[in-house]
Amino acid sequence: MSTLFLRTLREDPADAELPGHKLLVRAGYVRRAASGGFTWLPLGHRVLRRVEAVVREEMDAIGAQEVHFPALLPREPYEASGRWTDYGDNIFRLKDRRGADHLLAPTHEEVFTLLVKDVCSSYKDLPLSLYQVQTKFRDESRPRAGLLRAREFVMKDSYSFDVDDAGLAAAYARHRAAYWRIFERLGLPVVAVSAVSGAMGGSASEEFLHPSEHGEDAYVRTEAGYAANVEAVTTLPPPALDAAAIAALPPARVEDTPDTPTIDSLVAVANERFPREDRPWTAADTLKNVVVTLRHPDGTREPLVVGLPGDRDLDAKRLEAAVAPAEVEPFEAAGFAAHPGLVRGYIGPTALGTASSTGVRYLLDPRVVAGTSWVTGANEPGRHVFGLVAGRDFPAAGEEGGDGAIEAATVLAGDPAPDGSGPLQLARGMEMGHIFQLGRRFAQALGLQVLDANGKLVTVTMGSYGIGISRAVAALAESGADELGLRWPRAVAPADVHVVAAGKDDAVAEASEALAAELVQAGLTVLLDDRARVSPGVKFKDAELLGVPTVVTVGKRLADGVVEVRDRSVDGDGARTDVAVADAAAHLLALVRG
Amino acid sequence: MSTLFLRTLREDPADAELPGHKLLVRAGYVRRAASGGFTWLPLGHRVLRRVEAVVREEMDAIGAQEVHFPALLPREPYEASGRWTDYGDNIFRLKDRRGADHLLAPTHEEVFTLLVKDVCSSYKDLPLSLYQVQTKFRDESRPRAGLLRAREFVMKDSYSFDVDDAGLAAAYARHRAAYWRIFERLGLPVVAVSAVSGAMGGSASEEFLHPSEHGEDAYVRTEAGYAANVEAVTTLPPPALDAAAIAALPPARVEDTPDTPTIDSLVAVANERFPREDRPWTAADTLKNVVVTLRHPDGTREPLVVGLPGDRDLDAKRLEAAVAPAEVEPFEAAGFAAHPGLVRGYIGPTALGTASSTGVRYLLDPRVVAGTSWVTGANEPGRHVFGLVAGRDFPAAGEEGGDGAIEAATVLAGDPAPDGSGPLQLARGMEMGHIFQLGRRFAQALGLQVLDANGKLVTVTMGSYGIGISRAVAALAESGADELGLRWPRAVAPADVHVVAAGKDDAVAEASEALAAELVQAGLTVLLDDRARVSPGVKFKDAELLGVPTVVTVGKRLADGVVEVRDRSVDGDGARTDVAVADAAAHLLALVRG
Repeated sequence: MSTLFLRTLREDPADAELPGHKLLVRAGYVRRAASGGFTWLPLGHRVLRRVEAVVREEMDAIGAQEVHFPALLPREPYEASGRWTDYGDNIFRLKDRRGADHLLAPTHEEVFTLLVKDVCSSYKDLPLSLYQVQTKFRDESRPRAGLLRAREFVMKDSYSFDVDDAGLAAAYARHRAAYWRIFERLGLPVVAVSAVSGAMGGSASEEFLHPSEHGEDAYVRTEAGYAANVEAVTTLPPPALDAAAIAALPPARVEDTPDTPTIDSLVAVANERFPREDRPWTAADTLKNVVVTLRHPDGTREPLVVGLPGDRDLDAKRLEAAVAPAEVEPFEAAGFAAHPGLVRGYIGPTALGTASSTGVRYLLDPRVVAGTSWVTGANEPGRHVFGLVAGRDFPAAGEEGGDGAIEAATVLAGDPAPDGSGPLQLARGMEMGHIFQLGRRFAQALGLQVLDANGKLVTVTMGSYGIGISRAVAALAESGADELGLRWPRAVAPADVHVVAAGKDDAVAEASEALAAELVQAGLTVLLDDRARVSPGVKFKDAELLGVPTVVTVGKRLADGVVEVRDRSVDGDGARTDVAVADAAAHLLALVRG
Repeated sequence: MSTLFLRTLREDPADAELPGHKLLVRAGYVRRAASGGFTWLPLGHRVLRRVEAVVREEMDAIGAQEVHFPALLPREPYEASGRWTDYGDNIFRLKDRRGADHLLAPTHEEVFTLLVKDVCSSYKDLPLSLYQVQTKFRDESRPRAGLLRAREFVMKDSYSFDVDDAGLAAAYARHRAAYWRIFERLGLPVVAVSAVSGAMGGSASEEFLHPSEHGEDAYVRTEAGYAANVEAVTTLPPPALDAAAIAALPPARVEDTPDTPTIDSLVAVANERFPREDRPWTAADTLKNVVVTLRHPDGTREPLVVGLPGDRDLDAKRLEAAVAPAEVEPFEAAGFAAHPGLVRGYIGPTALGTASSTGVRYLLDPRVVAGTSWVTGANEPGRHVFGLVAGRDFPAAGEEGGDGAIEAATVLAGDPAPDGSGPLQLARGMEMGHIFQLGRRFAQALGLQVLDANGKLVTVTMGSYGIGISRAVAALAESGADELGLRWPRAVAPADVHVVAAGKDDAVAEASEALAAELVQAGLTVLLDDRARVSPGVKFKDAELLGVPTVVTVGKRLADGVVEVRDRSVDGDGARTDVAVADAAAHLLALVRG
């Protein structure tokens, strides 16, 4: 440490948000180089490379073969797949000196597909899994949360190629198992949750989330084992009524409800002026109609109204996932001016839908089944309609004549799990990995076919699998941190042992150097704090901050022939063991080799 | 090889120029993914990573510490150093979604400087050397020559930081020694040549060139050990005449020389119509004035005339280096129209120079010393002047009143070496590494100062050192190739041993698998050609093409208890040794471990 390029900080950096990221900066593992861009300093770089090594070993173990593509790619293949446009503002685009369009690729499905098309021609060349460990780029709208949301990051992305669905399922299962082993070896707790695949298309898809209150991803789970990210949660709708039951419902009636532009004000007025006999009106009886603007990848904009029970809000992520690749923007006053049929605060189903007077597209929450009866806007200022029945007065969710259903309402704790496994619990996590069964989308777009056993050309089916390597370092920092500093799992720590020379006399310096040398000789990596002008107190604080799992203090007790071994993974002051100098190396070797 | 992602090609790829690059593509090591962009396939990726490992080990051995910066960097630090503009069209620039300017950094002097400024404050923190292994980007005007001139490539760049010149010299020497060790370990012959540092500024600078007829860099050398790239060669001018001798020279006279727009035609007419008594006129007697356009980094353009002896041409690289960061463009007809004082084909010194009637800048070859007498243009159509004397009729090279001298003429074999070590020989090479003493340019521009031992702030002095890692793979391919295929040095080969199962019977398959397993068990990497439907002939051809240094054939002779071991590094058919099956593993281990 007397020559290590390191300056630890006692104060939290101003621009860091998450506790673990603050520690990574304070401990000199990373440093901000640009918005969303980080420099890996020597200790951080070691951790990053150890994570990489674990990922590579497990990829190799399932027979995936490592390759490496350029990050800077021409527009054409991404044009062919549609992603040049679909990515919107989320990728970096640039022109070369000749004016040709390029992108910094966030993932490489297109060019892997083209490569395999170039090399493979027969089912005998498959199954095949290829991977790369690569620096990726993404033009994040809000680069923040340190390494978790960087604009430049390290990822392992792999791709599987099979002739049939069974092959794809097997490749997916192999990757899934490898991912579990990777997170297990990294010492990083994760849950696998069902995921929609968003812009990637495809069928089966799971995310590996590291549960954390600081996570950017919301997910749900049940005691019985169901788990999904909120985008993937599907609604269990209530039973619909049959035609006879619907016919028996009382007719809708329009009432004056002045000054009720919000659900709360509407419920209050309804209970005050139009009370119901059996039970009071609640927000769940109202049908809220929220207007947003969709911006399509080609730049065109369109208003969209989402109808949902008034006790729920739109969930931004579910809505985004549901309308992707379009992006959601607020619907501004100018929009209302352009669509006079949309009466702000009093919008109702009878003026909504592409077949309606306004022609504005209208998507309904799946709970709005045939026979449900609603208090909702009457499309006149200050008026609402009571008893408006889906499937009678307007098309129910998904019913013919309507524009369809949408999964965009907030998921609430206690909602029933779609698989019937009980009430949902809400949680947050950090996305660490993602596995997709892509299917044939990319192979079709780019013409990847091989001859099958019968000599017939068949389109290849693909999977795509990613692990965030720099994100894993960030999550490990978050998950291990305590009030004293970082705590690294042994598998990825920047050193096996941190030897602190605590004291000024030569005996301390000599003994600590001899111990370090003996450990290095035995194949361990050692961080030796040999700084001459630094006090033992500062050295201890730095050792706690840096988080090497085993810290050995060579200090005052050396006169008694004893060094102190401390296990940084144990909470608080940690487990301290006195060990005889003569036994120290053997003791530490046993500890490290577990 | 039955599962390896590999398809070897019998035909040369259409888009490859160099023999080694053709073999890399044919042998499935790399594949073109875009203009100047290459994909590393499994075998190529292994070689690349082995080269990386050697470079890392030698960097670590001189105490350099590994870090990793983003490739995508904001404009500001490069603006502060002036390189945002100086790089001209050679870098990729892009805007993020907020419109902020970024570049894909080709080298990282600025941000290393800023990082060290952030972390170090005292001379006690120095000396310091930092390095990274990184994917770099450069918008090559003519991406070609395969990996040697890619737009995306892997480089090791390192930077040294010292308080004084002696420290910088020591850091430079350490890097220089490490580079020699690296190329030695890689088995790549190089020469170190003096280099001008171009846009980087600074004092001492050397390039490591791999001598090769396919190299893009011309360099010179003498038997006595002088070596420099052509940009760095300085001219030994002839002795100048003193004032008295100049006064004794006959006066200049203008002659009609119709239809002599070229040097050849001028020499012919001069000998025919104005013969000289002692010897005939030659091109060396004429002063040729070549007009080019300089485009400055800020986009402005300026005409420039270079005057040089008529027996030499302008050397594009020397001219580029001499005028950098300006770029050279042709001077077109429109330019002559805009400058009527420049009489095409008959331009002469008396109408040239910023102080002249045309005001056009005029730089002279250093050979145009005071007292040299020239046949040159008279600035009238069809007329030349004879006996125009530098230092009398126009300012000699570098003389007051003129615009200065320029090193831009071709270097010819036999020219005297600037260090007096004899006549120059010309050679070509591939640039593999480059070491610079940058000095204080970047530290000054970005304010990197530390306290010295006396508590005074001093500006840090820096060095910058690069090795092209992907270029090294390319050069190794070129240097090792023979008519049969690639030949890798043992240190970087994709496998230690290539075992060919040559034959269909089970005994061959079993014996080759057993041998491979035994070698892997002993720690070797083995490429096993276990392809069932491929003939021995094809397997042999592929083994030759792939270039693993040791090839073992398990085939017909197995019945006699013998396998054949072939040394691919030996020319032609190579050295073949028969080895008893029982001894094969031990024999191969000894071979590999040397």
